[in-house]
Amino acid sequence: MFRRRTFLRYSHHLFQPKFALDDGIKSIPTHELFQTLGFIKQSQSGLVHWLPMGLRTLNKVESIIRHRMNEDGDALEVSLSALSPRSLWKKTHRWSGNELFKLKDAKKADYCLTPTCEEDITNLMNEYITSYRDMPITVYQITRKYRDELRPRGGLLRGREFLMKDAYSFASNEEEALQIFQKINTVYNKIFQDLKIPFVSAWADTGDIGGDLSREYHYLHENGEDTLLTCDSCGNVSNVEKCESFPEEVGLHSGDVSVKYALSKDHNTLVCFYYPSNRQLSWNLAMDSVEGDVDVALKNESNETVLKTFERPEDEIMFSKVFRVMDCRINSRSNFPDFPLTKYLKSNFGQLNEVSLVAAETGELCASCEEGHLYGNASIEVGHTFHLGTKYSEPMESKFTDRNNNSNSIPQMGCYGIGISRLVGAIAEVTRDSKGFKWPSNISPYSISICGKNEQLVQETRRKITSQDVFFQFSPKLGLGARIKLSHALGIPLAIIVGPKSWPKVEIEVRGQRWGAGETWKQAYELHNREYDWQIISSGDNTEKHLVPIEYLTEVCNFLLRDL
Amino acid sequence: MFRRRTFLRYSHHLFQPKFALDDGIKSIPTHELFQTLGFIKQSQSGLVHWLPMGLRTLNKVESIIRHRMNEDGDALEVSLSALSPRSLWKKTHRWSGNELFKLKDAKKADYCLTPTCEEDITNLMNEYITSYRDMPITVYQITRKYRDELRPRGGLLRGREFLMKDAYSFASNEEEALQIFQKINTVYNKIFQDLKIPFVSAWADTGDIGGDLSREYHYLHENGEDTLLTCDSCGNVSNVEKCESFPEEVGLHSGDVSVKYALSKDHNTLVCFYYPSNRQLSWNLAMDSVEGDVDVALKNESNETVLKTFERPEDEIMFSKVFRVMDCRINSRSNFPDFPLTKYLKSNFGQLNEVSLVAAETGELCASCEEGHLYGNASIEVGHTFHLGTKYSEPMESKFTDRNNNSNSIPQMGCYGIGISRLVGAIAEVTRDSKGFKWPSNISPYSISICGKNEQLVQETRRKITSQDVFFQFSPKLGLGARIKLSHALGIPLAIIVGPKSWPKVEIEVRGQRWGAGETWKQAYELHNREYDWQIISSGDNTEKHLVPIEYLTEVCNFLLRDL
Repeated sequence: MFRRRTFLRYSHHLFQPKFALDDGIKSIPTHELFQTLGFIKQSQSGLVHWLPMGLRTLNKVESIIRHRMNEDGDALEVSLSALSPRSLWKKTHRWSGNELFKLKDAKKADYCLTPTCEEDITNLMNEYITSYRDMPITVYQITRKYRDELRPRGGLLRGREFLMKDAYSFASNEEEALQIFQKINTVYNKIFQDLKIPFVSAWADTGDIGGDLSREYHYLHENGEDTLLTCDSCGNVSNVEKCESFPEEVGLHSGDVSVKYALSKDHNTLVCFYYPSNRQLSWNLAMDSVEGDVDVALKNESNETVLKTFERPEDEIMFSKVFRVMDCRINSRSNFPDFPLTKYLKSNFGQLNEVSLVAAETGELCASCEEGHLYGNASIEVGHTFHLGTKYSEPMESKFTDRNNNSNSIPQMGCYGIGISRLVGAIAEVTRDSKGFKWPSNISPYSISICGKNEQLVQETRRKITSQDVFFQFSPKLGLGARIKLSHALGIPLAIIVGPKSWPKVEIEVRGQRWGAGETWKQAYELHNREYDWQIISSGDNTEKHLVPIEYLTEVCNFLLRDL
Repeated sequence: MFRRRTFLRYSHHLFQPKFALDDGIKSIPTHELFQTLGFIKQSQSGLVHWLPMGLRTLNKVESIIRHRMNEDGDALEVSLSALSPRSLWKKTHRWSGNELFKLKDAKKADYCLTPTCEEDITNLMNEYITSYRDMPITVYQITRKYRDELRPRGGLLRGREFLMKDAYSFASNEEEALQIFQKINTVYNKIFQDLKIPFVSAWADTGDIGGDLSREYHYLHENGEDTLLTCDSCGNVSNVEKCESFPEEVGLHSGDVSVKYALSKDHNTLVCFYYPSNRQLSWNLAMDSVEGDVDVALKNESNETVLKTFERPEDEIMFSKVFRVMDCRINSRSNFPDFPLTKYLKSNFGQLNEVSLVAAETGELCASCEEGHLYGNASIEVGHTFHLGTKYSEPMESKFTDRNNNSNSIPQMGCYGIGISRLVGAIAEVTRDSKGFKWPSNISPYSISICGKNEQLVQETRRKITSQDVFFQFSPKLGLGARIKLSHALGIPLAIIVGPKSWPKVEIEVRGQRWGAGETWKQAYELHNREYDWQIISSGDNTEKHLVPIEYLTEVCNFLLRDL
């Protein structure tokens, strides 16, 4: 029934630019560059379609993370449904979270699209964990997650649908839980080392996920929306929300003072945090100053509401306990707000002086070593680990029988996230230059391109290269120069330039950045350049070129790729 | 800050049965068996969480499909957002489809979770396809899809969230489109051959997706919900909805006759399909009998509505054209319904006799060869290919400039689906037996298990096997017999039994089915049994066992796995 033709010539270059790239590329914002170069296509605000080129990089990053989670993290991979029923989110009081995409099925049951899976995974594990012998266990998944951001950022850094690796650990006691937390942080270090881009990790605020202990992984970059503070003496790095600092000299602030009221956990003590009005109170530092003895439920309440909660009968008010905490920057001549109680006994007052209550700023002293100065860096967060304790296992009613036969023990959890699509966006942002992307070779969509207008030589070159990771499907409209430019813009680390003039030798143009020491290829060159008839025809200034006979092309490319 | 311990002993057996399996396993329905054995966990009706064991099989099936789509299908992989805006579905009149999961975002914009992506992919390709030179192109994705079935089936066969490979082709003319349709059908044959399970492909009804040409891929199985009819002479296989048949003798039906009214495309002719009341009219056969000249929009309208549409003024009614189509099973003595028009001219009547209008039944004659008899088989559909023509590209306003510089040409599309999670469910259903699952070795969660209670020997055996695809993490509670039973139930084709008695020899128990000729291992045995000291210690009756020294274990396993 069909007429046969031997060959359908597929249009594999469809998503690529059909025009020669010009210098304008340097001013294209990264999230647009992804689209110009055919990595992704934005479908709606915060939603993207992954095109073949982008999907290759996404998959390579995914593989690196999966490999480390399996081999070094001893974690088991699962894949949970993206539809999660309302009942689970009611238990943890997160159903009202206004960034949840919610929907009803045909039977009017409520679901959300999972932004993260603490509820689902804990509910699932409840079916399997019954004894301390069932732990420790770490499970993870690499699936799409959903967050209905009102203002999604351009591109991949903050989307409404994103690919995330989320891992969850369950342990029978805190010691075990902290061991896993440490282990996964080691895994994260390896993952980020595998990805080659320099990174920093920092103790972090636990934010809305909550819990006790948390580390963040960041790429330092001027376009980042986070701020990290680093000490120039001890090297300690912290997220600004978690960083304690001191002024060079205490008590220099004589201007306005602000106050934030809080109550002790038993609601018997009014806690007053005083700090300079021109600075921002750090709730974490405030909490730490009173050793956590504040009711966190009142954190976001106004001072009026806190005072109202504290109100008591006329005859008791005299005996109200008050605890004042003074930021070390203010002094007694500072302009304090009115004290809220009219009747009190000074003997019921406590006071703490010279603590640091406000978010650190560049130039202040590091509270860790008390010697160095802090300097701030903009950064992009790319990973986060949390020790959660029982924050989710308790409301989800997880129970197990411990070593002492106590059947009401509650598992200690941890959770560990890497936004994989975000990571691709972050790496692009920190490595790109005026020519386009510049991927590390192990996550570049292809590690090698073949640029040439002579189809026969291109195909012959392709057959000589043993790797499958080779790009040669340029739009036929593009000339040789445009192909080399496009290869560089796509971020492919090696462009092989093939033409009848030099044949059977070919040029290799190095586009990729040399990471680490970046010198191992030189040893190979010293050792093999005669044997392979391998010449360096230019170097330095962004245009390193090698010349090599086609029969040694694979070997030379492999040597060069080691450092890229 | 952490106390260090050198070793955390992870509970990798968590999701497995903790009890010895008994004979009851044979009566567990397949969709429950998946849960009993820790492959999946149903979270809600029609929704599942994939557990580590199930995810391994799912990923292996996915890899086979991806490999064939890339290598043989010349297709490019993409990955589209699962959230699709209402506007696209309005264009194709599919927004009102009642199996769509719909949701609103924070800005009250309407989205659905994609059940299939004709709208999105066509909209995407509109951005890139401008010329005939941009085609042909086939793109595919392997992503989760959503369908809000009111009555989801148990397990994986019909879920509300499922993993699907969906491919879409775009061609500049029909010839090219049919070549791609043929090519993808060739790819499907290879995919289903790779999966080893015998399958049939059949011409099929195009259903709601629509289009002109369609093939289905099925596994024959008594628990299937589809019916295929096969001719015992010419071997032609068709879906019952597409199968034309003839009775052994025409005109034998003298009972009640039913009629279905239709109108010709120009609405000038009333078409009356007459068929035996005890049979089911096949709309496809009816259409074919009048060479497609019916208004399909009236397909599901009642006879009354069709007649109403046909109504015309008194003076015209006399000249109404009527065309009667008679199923070959009825005769003139059959009990016909009243003729609907009261005034007519017989000379305006046309009639077609001896066509087949009803769904075929077992025992009737095959209309293809007119010699053989048809027999019916229950089957499970596992793949579907469609030539769509311009069914989607037209409403989605796709345009390109063709060879003749006509800029209003419309691309010819095809779409091609394989439900991957459904396929896993179907393979389990058709291959399982009373002992549990029985996967082909290339999609078994593991190809080899090591069963033993002596941890040291198990670890030593594991180190001797070069493959990573080895399962040995049994629950410590299980004895040796229970481990072997579990390995068999999980469907792992080879169980290696390790114990101090036979050491340094080990037993290999063959669980898997031998597919194809299944004899290549015997040649290897003849050739190598002395060299490897390889003995067959029992064979036949479900308990084939081999004995081999540990140093040749990998070689012998590889030989055995070839046929499994």
